[in-house]
Amino acid sequence: MDKKKIIIDCDPGYDDAVALLLAAGNPNVEVLGITTIAGNQTLEKVTRNALRIAKLAHLDHVSVAAGSARPLLRDQVVVAANIHGESGLDGCTLPEADYTVDQRNAAQFIIDTVMREPPQTVTLVPIGPLTNIALAVRMEPRIVERVKEVVLMGGGCHIGNIKPMAEFNIENDPEAAHIVFEEKWPIVMIGLDLTYQALATAEVKNEIAAIDTDAARFLTQVLARFSETYKRSKGFDEPPVHDPCAVAYVIDPTMMQVRKAPVHVEYRGLYTNGMTVVDLRKPAPEDCHTSVALKLDHKRFWDMIIAAVKNL
Amino acid sequence: MDKKKIIIDCDPGYDDAVALLLAAGNPNVEVLGITTIAGNQTLEKVTRNALRIAKLAHLDHVSVAAGSARPLLRDQVVVAANIHGESGLDGCTLPEADYTVDQRNAAQFIIDTVMREPPQTVTLVPIGPLTNIALAVRMEPRIVERVKEVVLMGGGCHIGNIKPMAEFNIENDPEAAHIVFEEKWPIVMIGLDLTYQALATAEVKNEIAAIDTDAARFLTQVLARFSETYKRSKGFDEPPVHDPCAVAYVIDPTMMQVRKAPVHVEYRGLYTNGMTVVDLRKPAPEDCHTSVALKLDHKRFWDMIIAAVKNL
Amino acid sequence: MDKKKIIIDCDPGYDDAVALLLAAGNPNVEVLGITTIAGNQTLEKVTRNALRIAKLAHLDHVSVAAGSARPLLRDQVVVAANIHGESGLDGCTLPEADYTVDQRNAAQFIIDTVMREPPQTVTLVPIGPLTNIALAVRMEPRIVERVKEVVLMGGGCHIGNIKPMAEFNIENDPEAAHIVFEEKWPIVMIGLDLTYQALATAEVKNEIAAIDTDAARFLTQVLARFSETYKRSKGFDEPPVHDPCAVAYVIDPTMMQVRKAPVHVEYRGLYTNGMTVVDLRKPAPEDCHTSVALKLDHKRFWDMIIAAVKNL
Amino acid sequence: MDKKKIIIDCDPGYDDAVALLLAAGNPNVEVLGITTIAGNQTLEKVTRNALRIAKLAHLDHVSVAAGSARPLLRDQVVVAANIHGESGLDGCTLPEADYTVDQRNAAQFIIDTVMREPPQTVTLVPIGPLTNIALAVRMEPRIVERVKEVVLMGGGCHIGNIKPMAEFNIENDPEAAHIVFEEKWPIVMIGLDLTYQALATAEVKNEIAAIDTDAARFLTQVLARFSETYKRSKGFDEPPVHDPCAVAYVIDPTMMQVRKAPVHVEYRGLYTNGMTVVDLRKPAPEDCHTSVALKLDHKRFWDMIIAAVKNL
Repeated sequence: MDKKKIIIDCDPGYDDAVALLLAAGNPNVEVLGITTIAGNQTLEKVTRNALRIAKLAHLDHVSVAAGSARPLLRDQVVVAANIHGESGLDGCTLPEADYTVDQRNAAQFIIDTVMREPPQTVTLVPIGPLTNIALAVRMEPRIVERVKEVVLMGGGCHIGNIKPMAEFNIENDPEAAHIVFEEKWPIVMIGLDLTYQALATAEVKNEIAAIDTDAARFLTQVLARFSETYKRSKGFDEPPVHDPCAVAYVIDPTMMQVRKAPVHVEYRGLYTNGMTVVDLRKPAPEDCHTSVALKLDHKRFWDMIIAAVKNL
Repeated sequence: MDKKKIIIDCDPGYDDAVALLLAAGNPNVEVLGITTIAGNQTLEKVTRNALRIAKLAHLDHVSVAAGSARPLLRDQVVVAANIHGESGLDGCTLPEADYTVDQRNAAQFIIDTVMREPPQTVTLVPIGPLTNIALAVRMEPRIVERVKEVVLMGGGCHIGNIKPMAEFNIENDPEAAHIVFEEKWPIVMIGLDLTYQALATAEVKNEIAAIDTDAARFLTQVLARFSETYKRSKGFDEPPVHDPCAVAYVIDPTMMQVRKAPVHVEYRGLYTNGMTVVDLRKPAPEDCHTSVALKLDHKRFWDMIIAAVKNL
Repeated sequence: MDKKKIIIDCDPGYDDAVALLLAAGNPNVEVLGITTIAGNQTLEKVTRNALRIAKLAHLDHVSVAAGSARPLLRDQVVVAANIHGESGLDGCTLPEADYTVDQRNAAQFIIDTVMREPPQTVTLVPIGPLTNIALAVRMEPRIVERVKEVVLMGGGCHIGNIKPMAEFNIENDPEAAHIVFEEKWPIVMIGLDLTYQALATAEVKNEIAAIDTDAARFLTQVLARFSETYKRSKGFDEPPVHDPCAVAYVIDPTMMQVRKAPVHVEYRGLYTNGMTVVDLRKPAPEDCHTSVALKLDHKRFWDMIIAAVKNL
Repeated sequence: MDKKKIIIDCDPGYDDAVALLLAAGNPNVEVLGITTIAGNQTLEKVTRNALRIAKLAHLDHVSVAAGSARPLLRDQVVVAANIHGESGLDGCTLPEADYTVDQRNAAQFIIDTVMREPPQTVTLVPIGPLTNIALAVRMEPRIVERVKEVVLMGGGCHIGNIKPMAEFNIENDPEAAHIVFEEKWPIVMIGLDLTYQALATAEVKNEIAAIDTDAARFLTQVLARFSETYKRSKGFDEPPVHDPCAVAYVIDPTMMQVRKAPVHVEYRGLYTNGMTVVDLRKPAPEDCHTSVALKLDHKRFWDMIIAAVKNL
C-alpha cells in the first residue's frame, strides 16, 4: 500500500503533539509538511513547539511553515492557555529544535505542495483554526480539485466546548471555516461528538507509561498534563484527545462511524458564532461533500497510537 | 387542589386542537382565555379554528382574543400548510362557532387578565410563535413578575424541524422569542427533544377511536390527518403531537424530566435564526430562570389526554 | 381652516419642551394627546416633565399616556443626560403637575385615538425613539391606513449625531424605527439635515427674552441651558432645536424643502446601526411613501415659535 | 526628484485604463507591477485587458500578476458590464498582448515586491475591489509597516453608486475592505465625493481628440464609450473618471483637498454593506491613519492626464 501523504496544519498544544507522534510513527502515512497557525497558543509559540516535536519524532526532514498569527476578520485570536499552558506544552520535556522554518507562509507552502504532488494524492489535516487553509484556497482555487480530502478536527453536531454550540478551532476563525466548508472538496469533520469518545483512560496511560522511549515518556507527560487541565477547567475525569482522531481517520477510516451530512458554519450569530450547523434531519443529498464523524472504536484508536509511539 | 389557571396562546393547527381538548377536559386546569397568533395558518384561519374547537370542547364561555397577524420584524409569516392544510384543520368536522372574538388584541387581553388575577396564579401557555407574548411584555412589563410561569411549546436542544437547528414556532418570530426568553420569568421550554417522544401510536389512536363522543371523533380525525401529513412531509411513521405537551406539563410536571439550563434565542445568524441555544455543558447557575424538557412518560401523557377526551 | 389634530410622542427634553409650547400656542393645531417614551431621560422623568410642561402650556385638558421604558430588542436605552441633564430639563422652572397620566399604555392610547377619530385626520408626531409607534402598529395594523401622516423628528441623510451616521432617536431603537419606516403610511422625516438649520441664534433668544410671560421665561431658560450643553458637548455655537421642526412642518409644510426619497433603517450593521439610509441617487419611485426634509426657512420657523409663545 | 514607485491593483475597465495611461506617461511615477482583480469584469477578462493596455502604454516590461477571481467571503462577484461592457473595454482598439502574466498570485507578487524594495518607498494603488490587498496583508503582515501609503479608489463620505450609500469597489468585497482599512498603514481614500468631480467634459475630450497618437486615440474611444454608458445607466451628462484620481493623488497630492477622518467599512448591515463610514463630525484624533479626498482641482487633473498621454 502506498503511504498516505498528508500536510498537518496545527497549533501544538498537547493533543496536537499526540497527532504529530501518531503521524510520525505510523508506517502508512507520509508527512509532507507541518504548517502552524495561532490557536492553542500564539503563532510564535506553536511554531517553536512544532519544530521541537518534529525533532523528537524524527520528522526533522519535514518542512515546518508558519502561517497566520491571527484570524481573517476577527480582532483577536483566543488562545487556550487554560488547557495548554503558557508555552502551549507546559510541563513537557522536549529537545531544542536545531532547524528552522520554511521561508514560505503556510498558505503558500500548502499551495506549492499540493500543486507539485500528483492530483488526488494529498490530504490536508487541519487540527487548528482554519485560517491557513482559507488563505490557501483563496490564493489558489485549483487546490480544491487537486487535494484528495480535507480531514479536519473541529466543530460538532450537538455540542460545543468554548461556547454552548461552538468548538474552539471553528469559533476562533468562523469566517475561515466558512470559506473552507463552502468549497466543494471532500471534507470529513472530526468534531466533538467523536473526539469526546477519544478519552485517555487510566488503562491507556498505564500502557504508554510502560514503554521505555523518549517519545513515550513525552507522551506520558502530555497526557498527564492534559488530564490535569481538563479536570481543572472542564471537570472531565479523563481528557478527550481531539487532534489525533483526524490523523487516525486518514490512516484507517474504518475505526469510525461517519455520516454524510450538509455542514455550514455560522459566522454571524449572536450566540452561535463558530457553530457547525449539521443537518441530520434526513439523508444527505447525493452531491453532499461533507461528512461528520459520530462514533469511535476506542480500543483500535489507542492501539494505533501506542503502536506508533513504540515505532518511534 | 385549586385549578391551575392558564391562558393558551395558539395557532390551531392539529396539535393545537389536541392541546385545547386536553385543557378543556382535564379537571385540574381552568382556561382563562384563548389567544391566537398567525403561525400554522393565517391569523384569520387559526382564530376561526380556535372558536370552533372551543365550541366543540364546551369552552365557549371563555374569551378568544385574536393577536398578531405577523411577526415583529420579519416580513412574512411562514404558515405550515404542508402539515395542517389550507384551513389549518383540513379534513376535520367541527361545529360552526356562534360567538365572536374579544374586542381586545391578544396582547392587551393577556395583560388585562394577568393584572386582574392574583399574583403568581396565571400560567401562560404559548404554543405558537411568541409575538403576542413579546408585545404584552413590552406594553406592560409588570406581567413578568405577576405570572406564575411561562410553559411554552417551541425550540429544542439538539434538533430542529423547519431548519437543521430551528423549530417552527421560534423560527417564525425569533425576535419575539428573544424578548420572551430574556425576561426573567420562569420559563419551561417544551421543545422538540420532548415532543418527538409524544408520538401518536396506533395503540393510542385505537384507544381514542373506541370512545363514542363528538370530541373523540374529532380527535380521531385530527390524529389521522396529522399522521398522514407527517408521514408525507417528514417521513415520520407516527406523528409527534407537540402542543398538548405544554398543557400536560402544567397539569402534571412529574410526567417529564426537566432540566434547568440557560437558553438564548439566536436571531442574527445566517444558518441558525430561530435556534434556541441551550447550554447543557455544565449545571445551570443558581439564578437560571429557564428549564428545558428532555424526557416524557409516554403512557401517562396519553392516558391524561384520553381521560380528558372522555370527560368532554 | 380646521385645526390639524396631532398626537405628540415625546421624551422631554429641552427641545421637546419647545415642540410642546409651539403645539400649545399655535391656533392651527389641536393636541389630541401627549405620549411619552424613554429617550432623552428615563420614562419616569420624561413623563413627569411632559405633565409639567402641559400644565404650564395650558394643555392640562389633554391626556398624557406613558409608553415604553425601553427599546424593543436592545438591552439598554441610552439617555442624553449630557445634553438634557439629570432631570431631562435641568435648570428650568416649571409648575408641579396636578393631574396624572392616562391609565393606558401610550401604544394603546394611540390606537384608541386614531381609531376613534375620522380617517385621515390624525397626524402622529413622534419626536423621540419610535418604540411606542412600533408597538401600536403591531397591535393594531389598521392605524396605518387611518392616520393622515407620520411626521417625525429623527435620522438624517448625510450626517449623524450620536454616531457618525446615526441620529439619537433612531439609534436608540433601530428595530422600532425599521418597523415604522417599512409600514406604507406617509412619513415625513425631519432629520438632522433640516434641524441643524434650526439654530437658536442670539437674535432669536433676545426676541423671546423680551416677552413677559411664564411660557416665554421658561423658553428662555430652556434655550439658555440647551445652548450651554450643546456648546460644551458638541462645540456648537448655537444649538439646533430639533423637535419643534416636526410640529412646525405639520402646521406649515411650506417653510421647508422636502424631497420624496426611499428610506430604510439599518439595524444590523456594526458601524451603521440606527442609520436612516436615504436614496438620493435619483428621483423616488411613484409609490414612495417617505419624504425627507432638507431645507428650512429659519425666519419663518422662529417667527412661528415666537408667535405661539406670545399666544400662551 | 525620485520617481514614486507604485503597484497598481486594478480591474480594467475604462477608467482603470485611464489610470494606467496616466501612470505610464507621467515622468514622476514608476510602475513596479500591475496586479488584477475581478471587479468591473471577470478576472480573466480584466487580466487580458491589463496586458493589452500595458502593451499599448509601453509598460510591457512591467510584471502583470493575476489575483483573486472572487471576493473573500461573498459568493459572487458583481461585474459592471452595464458600464464597461462584456469585455470590460467594449468598443476600444487595443494591440494583442504578446507577453504573459507573472506566475505568482497578485497577493504574493505584492508581498515580494514590497519586501524587496526599501522600506517606505512603495505605494499601493488599488483601484478595484480590495481582495488582493487583504490577502497580501494576512499572508505577510509586515507589509503594513513597509509600504509608504495605500492610495485607493473606492468608497465615499456622503454618497454611493451601486447602493444608496455604497460604492462598487468596496461593496464588491466589504470584508476585504474592512481588513485593509483596519490595518494601521496610511490610507488615502479617493472616493465618490472626489471622483464625481473628475468629469470628462466635452472640452477635455476635444483636447484629447486633437492628439495624434495611438494612446490618445484609445483614450478617446474609452471616454466616448464611458460617456455613453454613464449616460444610459446613470443619467450622467459627463462621466466621472474615477480610477486615475488615485494615481493623480500619488503624483501630486496638492491638486486635492484631503481631510483626516476615521473610516470603517460596514460589512454586516442589511442596507449598508460596503459603506465606508466616515466620521466628519469633529477633527480626527491624532493617531488617525485614514484620510478622505473631498475636492479636486479639475483643470490640473485633466492637464496631467493630457500631458501623460502626449508623453506616450
